[in-house]
Amino acid sequence: MRKRMMSGLVLGLLLLFVARAEPQTDPLPSWNDGPAKKAIVEFVQVTTDKASSKFVAPEARIATFDQDGTLWVEQPMYTQVMYCLERVPAVVKAKPELKDVEPFKTVLSGNREAMAKLSMRDLEKILAATLTGMSVEQFGAEVKEWLGKAQHPRFKRPYTDLAYQPMLEVLKYLRANDYKTYIVTGGGQDFVRVYAEAVYGIPPEQVVGTAGGTKWGYDKSGRPFLTKEPKLLLNDNDAGKPQGIHLMIGRRPYAAFGNSTGDRQMLEYTGAGDGARLMMLALHDDATREYAYGPARGLPPSKVGTFPQALYDEAQKKGWTVISIKSDWKRIFGFE
Amino acid sequence: MRKRMMSGLVLGLLLLFVARAEPQTDPLPSWNDGPAKKAIVEFVQVTTDKASSKFVAPEARIATFDQDGTLWVEQPMYTQVMYCLERVPAVVKAKPELKDVEPFKTVLSGNREAMAKLSMRDLEKILAATLTGMSVEQFGAEVKEWLGKAQHPRFKRPYTDLAYQPMLEVLKYLRANDYKTYIVTGGGQDFVRVYAEAVYGIPPEQVVGTAGGTKWGYDKSGRPFLTKEPKLLLNDNDAGKPQGIHLMIGRRPYAAFGNSTGDRQMLEYTGAGDGARLMMLALHDDATREYAYGPARGLPPSKVGTFPQALYDEAQKKGWTVISIKSDWKRIFGFE
Repeated sequence: MRKRMMSGLVLGLLLLFVARAEPQTDPLPSWNDGPAKKAIVEFVQVTTDKASSKFVAPEARIATFDQDGTLWVEQPMYTQVMYCLERVPAVVKAKPELKDVEPFKTVLSGNREAMAKLSMRDLEKILAATLTGMSVEQFGAEVKEWLGKAQHPRFKRPYTDLAYQPMLEVLKYLRANDYKTYIVTGGGQDFVRVYAEAVYGIPPEQVVGTAGGTKWGYDKSGRPFLTKEPKLLLNDNDAGKPQGIHLMIGRRPYAAFGNSTGDRQMLEYTGAGDGARLMMLALHDDATREYAYGPARGLPPSKVGTFPQALYDEAQKKGWTVISIKSDWKRIFGFE
Repeated sequence: MRKRMMSGLVLGLLLLFVARAEPQTDPLPSWNDGPAKKAIVEFVQVTTDKASSKFVAPEARIATFDQDGTLWVEQPMYTQVMYCLERVPAVVKAKPELKDVEPFKTVLSGNREAMAKLSMRDLEKILAATLTGMSVEQFGAEVKEWLGKAQHPRFKRPYTDLAYQPMLEVLKYLRANDYKTYIVTGGGQDFVRVYAEAVYGIPPEQVVGTAGGTKWGYDKSGRPFLTKEPKLLLNDNDAGKPQGIHLMIGRRPYAAFGNSTGDRQMLEYTGAGDGARLMMLALHDDATREYAYGPARGLPPSKVGTFPQALYDEAQKKGWTVISIKSDWKRIFGFE
């Protein structure tokens, strides 16, 4: 009897010990321990601890994320540009007169070498033809349909599978701590809104992106609808990012994540606020698991264009944290 | 003993009865019973009841509200126009060369008759001088300071006291039922954002309004800031309201509230969605407690301009609910 009592006591103590020793669930399991993970966790801790001098009221907790190259793969080409190119056959089918007109003719040829030589003006014509001229509902349906069947050329998976697992964890972790997470993308706002909720858990109203105007009109039955117009309202790149944040959010973010010169002003704007601010830049330095393009990697200038040495230097100088995808990310995709 | 038991039983039954008979708290105590209140309550019930065919998923619950004349008083002049006129002395003090230049000279004279004759072009000059040219932070501070001391000419109270109590109850009631409440105003987005959270419980990111561009720059210490520019990005009136909703929210509202022709397209856009939709127009028909301007009231045409007979007819035809301020609102302001 005494023995049973003792063993009961030991078991109880053991259970107590196990319960106490059980580690808190790691909110960022796909991150290796290191300065990047530490910066995120410490930022969340000091801004959500009421006793901290850097406490941020829940309603002011705004975090902004670039998309291409920050939340998902942007190589070998922005997904939206891929969409526009792959939409060309359907556009030409609806407007056969475009068949022999450049740049549509070249895109239809499928000649990758010729396509690589298309000018910015050509690309603008393709974007205008594939992103405007239809109702916002029709556009959304077209994007959704394409996303359901399109595949990334290297990973042979839907583009929506190519969100970075470590960043999905950061989004969740911040939201669990009452941060409102926004996408602030150079990509088309209407394009990204189609899948942002499903892929990132970010609703349409929290997607800020390059935006065009719409035209108000009525169909034959008198039902009103909006048509997408080739009129630029917001170029959400570079200084356009803080401008877009002011326009659409109206508050300065406490945390901002980017990966290129297009995100520089967003990070500067975030860093110019007082209290604790988190500015992070993803450096693509893992050619094996993803891609390598960035400063001081011996890459041709065309490849370091989005993350030149000057941006790296500014990050060092201003205390922004550079995420090394190679070292900081335990795994890159959810399907791995 | 038996008697005590009985009385205990009776007391218990009484308590039970009292508990059961206690009416559910009325979410809209400042509304008289009538078709307007009924429309709001029924809309909330059918869209939040999972068993209803008109159930709306919480994340899709968007309600949009015009501000001037819908959420607060817009007579005798929009508050923001009042602000701009009252800012003129400070602007002229900073730029003395404007003292003898029209329309500033007339505004400085304080001659109400002369001011009433100012043209739209004059007004635009005043708006540009008082709403642009400063950093967004400086503008916010100036508006905040003015709101702290300005008074409505008739009610002799701060403008922020002149929010309609019945509408504050609608905002709260909708939010308690997981609706995201947005202001969609023809007024300046930056202006309304200064007080929307304190007055309406609506955070800056849920204020859509007429918006201008901003310029990115750095001060002497290298700190970046945005300067308000006299460049119109969104005229959030008429068709601009659904356009603004698409741009800033990206979802069609389930409920929309307005009070003038400037809200017509927003109500049409809302009503063009499927399922249950609530479209409401406030009719100002109470000269005693507030103001009377609207159709069929024997008012001069200048006064019915914002709610002409044609809008009333469209509301009847499309099943929008007209709120009679005189009949539907038990009280108008919170301070009453």
